[in-house]
Amino acid sequence: MIYQSIRLSISLSSKFLRRSFGAMMGSPIEKLTSLRKEFDSEKIDAYLLPSTDAHQSEYLAEFDFRVKFLSGFSGSNAFVLVTKEKALLWTDGRYFIQAKAQMSADWTMMTQALKDSISPEDWINSNVEKGAVIGFDPDIMTYDEAKSMSGRLSSVGFKMRPIHGNLVDRFWKERPTLPNKKLICLSKEETGASVDEKLTRVREELKKRQCKALVLLALDDVMWTLNIRGGDIQYNPLAYSVLLVTDKDAHLFIDSVKLDSSSRSHLSDVSIHEYTETKQFLTNYSKSLEGTNATVFIPGTTNYAIGELFESRMYQGVSPIQGMKAKKNNVELEGIRRASIRDAVALSKYLVWLEEKVIGGADLTEDAAGKKIDEIRTHEEKFVDLSFDTISAVGPHAALPHYHPSNGSELVKTTTNEVFLVDSGAQYRDGTTDVTRTVWYGNKVPAEFRRDNTLVLMAHIDMATTVFPVGINGIRLDAISRMGMWKYGLDYNHGLGHGVGHFLNVHEAPGISHRRYSDHNLLYEGTVITIEPGLYMEGKWGIRIENVYELVPATVPSGAPFLTFKPLTWLPIQREIIDVTMLEERHKQWLNDYHSKTLSILKGNIDERTGDHTKELEWLKKACAPI
Amino acid sequence: MIYQSIRLSISLSSKFLRRSFGAMMGSPIEKLTSLRKEFDSEKIDAYLLPSTDAHQSEYLAEFDFRVKFLSGFSGSNAFVLVTKEKALLWTDGRYFIQAKAQMSADWTMMTQALKDSISPEDWINSNVEKGAVIGFDPDIMTYDEAKSMSGRLSSVGFKMRPIHGNLVDRFWKERPTLPNKKLICLSKEETGASVDEKLTRVREELKKRQCKALVLLALDDVMWTLNIRGGDIQYNPLAYSVLLVTDKDAHLFIDSVKLDSSSRSHLSDVSIHEYTETKQFLTNYSKSLEGTNATVFIPGTTNYAIGELFESRMYQGVSPIQGMKAKKNNVELEGIRRASIRDAVALSKYLVWLEEKVIGGADLTEDAAGKKIDEIRTHEEKFVDLSFDTISAVGPHAALPHYHPSNGSELVKTTTNEVFLVDSGAQYRDGTTDVTRTVWYGNKVPAEFRRDNTLVLMAHIDMATTVFPVGINGIRLDAISRMGMWKYGLDYNHGLGHGVGHFLNVHEAPGISHRRYSDHNLLYEGTVITIEPGLYMEGKWGIRIENVYELVPATVPSGAPFLTFKPLTWLPIQREIIDVTMLEERHKQWLNDYHSKTLSILKGNIDERTGDHTKELEWLKKACAPI
Repeated sequence: MIYQSIRLSISLSSKFLRRSFGAMMGSPIEKLTSLRKEFDSEKIDAYLLPSTDAHQSEYLAEFDFRVKFLSGFSGSNAFVLVTKEKALLWTDGRYFIQAKAQMSADWTMMTQALKDSISPEDWINSNVEKGAVIGFDPDIMTYDEAKSMSGRLSSVGFKMRPIHGNLVDRFWKERPTLPNKKLICLSKEETGASVDEKLTRVREELKKRQCKALVLLALDDVMWTLNIRGGDIQYNPLAYSVLLVTDKDAHLFIDSVKLDSSSRSHLSDVSIHEYTETKQFLTNYSKSLEGTNATVFIPGTTNYAIGELFESRMYQGVSPIQGMKAKKNNVELEGIRRASIRDAVALSKYLVWLEEKVIGGADLTEDAAGKKIDEIRTHEEKFVDLSFDTISAVGPHAALPHYHPSNGSELVKTTTNEVFLVDSGAQYRDGTTDVTRTVWYGNKVPAEFRRDNTLVLMAHIDMATTVFPVGINGIRLDAISRMGMWKYGLDYNHGLGHGVGHFLNVHEAPGISHRRYSDHNLLYEGTVITIEPGLYMEGKWGIRIENVYELVPATVPSGAPFLTFKPLTWLPIQREIIDVTMLEERHKQWLNDYHSKTLSILKGNIDERTGDHTKELEWLKKACAPI
Repeated sequence: MIYQSIRLSISLSSKFLRRSFGAMMGSPIEKLTSLRKEFDSEKIDAYLLPSTDAHQSEYLAEFDFRVKFLSGFSGSNAFVLVTKEKALLWTDGRYFIQAKAQMSADWTMMTQALKDSISPEDWINSNVEKGAVIGFDPDIMTYDEAKSMSGRLSSVGFKMRPIHGNLVDRFWKERPTLPNKKLICLSKEETGASVDEKLTRVREELKKRQCKALVLLALDDVMWTLNIRGGDIQYNPLAYSVLLVTDKDAHLFIDSVKLDSSSRSHLSDVSIHEYTETKQFLTNYSKSLEGTNATVFIPGTTNYAIGELFESRMYQGVSPIQGMKAKKNNVELEGIRRASIRDAVALSKYLVWLEEKVIGGADLTEDAAGKKIDEIRTHEEKFVDLSFDTISAVGPHAALPHYHPSNGSELVKTTTNEVFLVDSGAQYRDGTTDVTRTVWYGNKVPAEFRRDNTLVLMAHIDMATTVFPVGINGIRLDAISRMGMWKYGLDYNHGLGHGVGHFLNVHEAPGISHRRYSDHNLLYEGTVITIEPGLYMEGKWGIRIENVYELVPATVPSGAPFLTFKPLTWLPIQREIIDVTMLEERHKQWLNDYHSKTLSILKGNIDERTGDHTKELEWLKKACAPI
């Protein structure tokens, strides 16, 4: 699933939420009035509200979705500014139409990243009276962000003031509660490294940087370090928590309702505190360091409230956990390999079913077609959850890379007249999956679609066969997947691929895209990463072919340390919609080799299962035949 | 010429300088003692000295080469710190051996960019007593650099203090004088845009950013804007100067000895002031803005002394001139095309001569082989200077991409037993050139060399045939030139290419490399840029094939705005050392097409010349035959 498609996992429940919010929460202007009422007592003239949580999570729990409650806008990227007179919401091109549709006339939508876009700072400078005080929630703005914004605003005569306790929460009466799912604890047999070993490695990293301690707020960093998983955010096996690792001990802050005796015993090397005590404890810890020259590692995404505590002794950088968790060990890789095969078996069953339905002219909606794969996956061993909201798109819908069915569009039928794209994945206890296939059944496939589909396949293969030096930045590889389609004047507007966690977030660093990654997020052996080029023809079709790969050492004549991609996803790529005349020999070789291995791997796995699988096996044999 | 090979143009005169410095300037310890004597009166405990000038020039005039005078080290990259007890010089891997050899035991060499490298700030923190005051020259440290270093040092208990007047200059008795060559003025017929038109465009850029004025210190920016060229720095047609462009007028600060009546009349729209009056004038200008909210555009490379004047009204960013001068207009392009053809004619003559000498077994040293092309070029029309110090390297010398003959190595002979690499270029009044050819004559070429040479040729062609969207960052293309050799586990340790000025610096933005360029230095139509992949086998050989290209619109089926490369350099690439079996059809096609056009273009130009050119024409025909 494309990384830029950061968005909230709300489509299953969105209709319900829209209805219930409407009834319960008062009108948009009433909410703004409630918010503005707080301005006087806090001595502020305006209030900033980015749409995120205290951990800078990619996906939010409904509990933290203040921007949606306040403005009605449900997109994932939003930055809100409410002044005494105006209410503004900044978002990017993916959401312009949606934001305008969802927000009332009390709101003004502001654009990001266009030529004439105006930043919040510039807007304030031109529209707010000098000397005004702008309030913000120090829990949900990062230290870096608040510092730099405050610097820019103060240079033009404004002041930023942190206000503890979010102002929206003060009148959000029907605020959803925080989930309280029990923690899942993973053994060393499942993770390849014990908590103790991981803490030792963290302390080595701290020592290298002459730091006394590390404060972790990124939830997947906390989960990885302690071999735990949670259920607080849909699709992401995360529990709200904070971890302090010092040179001597470790402290986990988490709602105790999520613990039981087995998780307490799993975490016996860690002192456990209530989540609500985080700030007080860290304040005391910071005070205990007074008079020493100890520095504390505060990752760049740490919120202002926590960062501020360590202002005088702060070591800033990318969390050292990012690099560690990106390089999967053999146990993690084995788990991901097994999970990927089970996932592909589920998808094979699905594709057999789908082909039959579509060719048979069944009354199958886009929505139902998506739900079917979700259902099939739940039967696979070690299934925990989906890894994101399945993208299931017919025809022109597939041309929107971030498409989600809404307002009845999901009732569009899958037919032999149009393409069908399905991008889906799951969280298994031994690994996370993410795969996209684009299919068009029957004999009505236009030549132009066939060309586009072949260009995407070639882009995929060009990247999958790339050999590259260990430790380079993903931005350097991205164009290799585009060279071919660029010659046709075509391109796709998202990154080539993203890192995938081990039973953890489906998006993690490093990736391969036009974005330059931090020097702490480079490509190393053991990284698990997607390859997912696409082409999107407005009003016609969208195409994406996505597999997950692991980075493995490449055998090169020089013997130097180089890497290449080894598939984790083994699933047929539809052969009937390829223009074979466009392929170079090396493309054919890769595809035939990939299909021959896919057949052997999936057949082996299916053969071990009980029941009659004749249909799947026949389909597989045909789908994997050489071209 | 490779961009990372930033180095000083001293090889012609270095032996003289070494001798004379030794006699005149006192011993290394005497110099350090003289420097430290200044510490007391300035109330500092240490002194910082980066090796650059007030304009952050890539090449320095001897006048500004303080680090060499003080330390003996003549490399281009150096950052010096002298404390009361120690003298340290930071440099990078290109110069470790050289720095150790050139510096006395009074100095300690510090490494940059290695895993265990220590930054000057960290070194100070661990080795200097807290509370110490570190002096620096505000003319040669950028505002950004000084601010960020000062921030880091003050957070750990140190203070940085700007000291006006470089401390080294106070005891540098035999300091070389500033050159005083007359300005060259270029007409609108030569540049395609008058000074007035360029100033209007600059003011439009200022208006877009709501700036009242722009201060330009980068010398090539000043030259380009005013259609002037100078002769203060070898190989770079630059004159020391500063330009202030306001919404109403323009002020040039330059030594009046460089002007004559014709340049004064060329610059009639600009107020002219002495170079030494820059600071006083800008101080007054800044004062005149007090009480207004005017902002002044101060490019990121502006020195601290000037930056500081505009601290309260500073708009920082990449100089807007960089983007303007990168997009060459038709007049500039026509000039560059003509200059490149004349340059290639000179090189053809040279290659005929060289082949004859080497195959004939003449007593030809590497040094003499380099001097010959320099000499041939001086006879070409509109020749002004070389564009950099010619790299002429035999055998293993060619494996050092930044090789320059020294200490007798230049006496090595060119033979049929070894490769010969020549990287050279010139400044013509209508354009700047830069070209590298690698040749190996006779029948002793090893198969492994042939393979490496073919990989470099394929890398060159892979890039030259790339089609890509308008306005992308060069870092995204770089790997396309490496894909092929990566499969062999091979790579080269420099960028793919750099922008080239129009009768201006041979290195300018944007480039194509593993470095990410600023969003103000993207690839647009009209950009003139090198393609110069290489392979360097230590102790054996080095290979580089370099042409200059212009970026032109590509014809693509979609009709979308895409670009591709069109050669400006037309010069045969040695056919005899290619392993034709390794080439794909598209490589052969490109090479045959390139050679056929080269033959036609050079033949046409040679035919027009007087004299007997039978030999060159015969050679060309053979060298350009299809493979």
